[in-house]
Amino acid sequence: MDLNEFRKHGHELVDWMADYFEGIENLPVRSTVNPGEIIKQLPADAPDEAEPFEVIMNDFNNIIMPGITHWQHPGWHGYFTANNSYPSILAEMLTSTLGAQCMSWLTSPAATELKENVMQWTAKMIGLPDNFTGVIQDTASTATLVSLLTAREKATGMSTNANGFYNFRPFTIYCSTEAHSSIERAVKIAGFGKDYLRKIEVDEFFAMRTDKLRLAIEKDIRDGFEPLAVVAAIGTTGSTAIDPLDEIGELCKKHNIWLHVDAAWAGTALLLPRMRYMIKGIENVDTFVFNPHKWMFTNFDCTAYFVKDKGALIQTFEILPEYLKTKEGNTVNNYRDWGIQLGRRFRALKLWFVIRTFGVKGLQEKIQNHLTWANEFAGWIEKSKNFELLAPTPLATVCFRLKPETWLSEEALNQLNAQFIEAINLTGKIFLSHTKLNGKFTLRLVVGQTNTEHRHIEKAWQIINDTALMFA
Amino acid sequence: MDLNEFRKHGHELVDWMADYFEGIENLPVRSTVNPGEIIKQLPADAPDEAEPFEVIMNDFNNIIMPGITHWQHPGWHGYFTANNSYPSILAEMLTSTLGAQCMSWLTSPAATELKENVMQWTAKMIGLPDNFTGVIQDTASTATLVSLLTAREKATGMSTNANGFYNFRPFTIYCSTEAHSSIERAVKIAGFGKDYLRKIEVDEFFAMRTDKLRLAIEKDIRDGFEPLAVVAAIGTTGSTAIDPLDEIGELCKKHNIWLHVDAAWAGTALLLPRMRYMIKGIENVDTFVFNPHKWMFTNFDCTAYFVKDKGALIQTFEILPEYLKTKEGNTVNNYRDWGIQLGRRFRALKLWFVIRTFGVKGLQEKIQNHLTWANEFAGWIEKSKNFELLAPTPLATVCFRLKPETWLSEEALNQLNAQFIEAINLTGKIFLSHTKLNGKFTLRLVVGQTNTEHRHIEKAWQIINDTALMFA
Repeated sequence: MDLNEFRKHGHELVDWMADYFEGIENLPVRSTVNPGEIIKQLPADAPDEAEPFEVIMNDFNNIIMPGITHWQHPGWHGYFTANNSYPSILAEMLTSTLGAQCMSWLTSPAATELKENVMQWTAKMIGLPDNFTGVIQDTASTATLVSLLTAREKATGMSTNANGFYNFRPFTIYCSTEAHSSIERAVKIAGFGKDYLRKIEVDEFFAMRTDKLRLAIEKDIRDGFEPLAVVAAIGTTGSTAIDPLDEIGELCKKHNIWLHVDAAWAGTALLLPRMRYMIKGIENVDTFVFNPHKWMFTNFDCTAYFVKDKGALIQTFEILPEYLKTKEGNTVNNYRDWGIQLGRRFRALKLWFVIRTFGVKGLQEKIQNHLTWANEFAGWIEKSKNFELLAPTPLATVCFRLKPETWLSEEALNQLNAQFIEAINLTGKIFLSHTKLNGKFTLRLVVGQTNTEHRHIEKAWQIINDTALMFA
Repeated sequence: MDLNEFRKHGHELVDWMADYFEGIENLPVRSTVNPGEIIKQLPADAPDEAEPFEVIMNDFNNIIMPGITHWQHPGWHGYFTANNSYPSILAEMLTSTLGAQCMSWLTSPAATELKENVMQWTAKMIGLPDNFTGVIQDTASTATLVSLLTAREKATGMSTNANGFYNFRPFTIYCSTEAHSSIERAVKIAGFGKDYLRKIEVDEFFAMRTDKLRLAIEKDIRDGFEPLAVVAAIGTTGSTAIDPLDEIGELCKKHNIWLHVDAAWAGTALLLPRMRYMIKGIENVDTFVFNPHKWMFTNFDCTAYFVKDKGALIQTFEILPEYLKTKEGNTVNNYRDWGIQLGRRFRALKLWFVIRTFGVKGLQEKIQNHLTWANEFAGWIEKSKNFELLAPTPLATVCFRLKPETWLSEEALNQLNAQFIEAINLTGKIFLSHTKLNGKFTLRLVVGQTNTEHRHIEKAWQIINDTALMFA
């Protein structure tokens, strides 16, 4: 493919992309293919000869596209959203063209300094104190791992990096029973062992019980363990419950325990000053993560990770072989030392394009709408005789289930709702995912897709009711 | 920004992108900005109001672009390349538009099955035995960490994940003194401690000495340590030395030691059957990593990671909270359980576009050219009175230094060459990076940028000679 062909096909793709968004509501949200249906259409060997772009695009349209689940469909209400937006996509076009590998300041001064700048913007936009420094990571899983490793090294004076767990210190880590699976994964990776992860009981609203946390910490100290870190959730994955950061922070302060906040989804809501009650107590927090790639209209992957002790972070990860030395040394930021990976993409650009294109007010307006509509939807559920709310709606995720007026056992209700959600998703008009809350099969309706408007929420409600009729 | 504006700006950007490649040789390879020069032009606060795209692009062109170091410039000879290519960029446009988050089969059947397929292609293309299973990771750093964690869990029956290092087993890890910094970082993260990383002496050509490896392993066993894993380099970062995999593999087999191969850059050369001498002994290898994002014309990030014991990999990382359960269960691949991160981008698409657009023969031809030209350049160096080769050129990286005929101390030579490389890079026409080999400051000229042609190598030679005149 030469430059002229690239230009020509590039223009064709822009039309494909715009047409995709224009027609997206005609596509089933969840792909309708069966396992194995895509791969059986693909040859087992790579082609020896070059193939024309038209042939590849033809296969893309006919083989790949039917297997796409459309995360950018306005009827997407599953998991959490992984939003893109027009300015974000445009920025990604530039990023992939420049192909800059931003490990050091020298290898991309602009990426390095724009990242510093846009992370400063972001910290202020969500109301973090100015003693936090930001860096973009790929995912919250990585950020949480980075946080726990930094805690480990800070507590051991960098000696675990040096000697491993040779002088075993039985560190204990704490999160709620509703916390995200990435915490357990990080605890395993870092060598703590999941037996030392204390999953603290939650209250009736699925937030961590501080009294139970205190008892667990005190017991561990008595038993000779060393409480190392608490991971508090601002918006759990199941029901977006908000752990009481203020109380947790006081406990951590008292016992000199590292405090990481996982606000992967909910962090974006902090754009609205009224929502900052969620981070009351932030002064006792060591690290904070949220994902602009979830709810802030910036293509996956783009995780905003904030850290108070920048020095400890860098000390935990820095390695300086000769081939990476540059004349600027550490008078500049070399982000290769700020996490797991050496290589880094130019992710700051898309965040910059998004923030400027929407403006802070534009972002706030969208988030406000999502909160309003989710609460409106929760109201419809509450009023209805056929449904039951299973958790509060502090943000934009509604947890509910079908509950017919005739009595059914909990087991029967769980089975009914598993069938119910499948029937909803089979309509192809909307997509919901599920969790379990107190053992109850729970449908989760997340309001937050970039392209979702009020009419889509009304439509979702209608589809849910129409589908419920099949189960009456 | 509405859909019509998106379409309009998308077309503008395609022209920007094509124009960029058309004019790239007029840009200085390495950015000429000074530290702080970009950020001081950027406002400290995000804009409240939406800004028009024209204003943002204006800032992009005037503020950001001068701070870009051009990795896609045909005069790029630094570090290793991080290549893109036209088909790869086009695929990234689709990927960012679809915005699919591919953690589970259900959340993107097409991404899951295309990944499986294209990793099968890739394994065959580089001559791996068919008992390897591939998965795309973000970077080789991550892949090496994943490999060592899998080794750790396999050796302990998953008990480190469960109990940490409570029953401390003093595992030792081995790599050469020339191995990549990511190995030390992985050793730290996984909790082994870098004191237990044995850096084995290299031979005169910078490859691991198997006799020294054997002695180290035997000593560790005598001393009560448990040799866990060896990381062999196929193409070290300094000089692209090739560790003797066959001999290392025999040792690993004998002592039941996990063997990981880091072929981050050099793996692409395996496209040429004649280069597969490098992986003689592959039958004793457990995991293998190379980066299509380096030399195989696929946008960063795209790492191909191959593993023999897929079950151990998945067991090491899988966690299944209710909210991630799908009806397909584990009858399908859910790549969220194949590494560190939960979320995953649709990276297979760009690799598919690249392989099909070039064809295997097209890829082979490019790599063959790079090898030829690098060897031609090494010949020029060897013949010249002013320069000295400092390592063999088994691949496409030439290690050399300026060495005037008048005698200079090693220290003076190092200083001279540090100034020399800076002068070369200041021309803006080419970019080289350095390393140290046997304490000697070494210039590395990597031949492998997508857009590099033979004339660029001739030009590089001329620039290097012209610059050397300043130091005569």
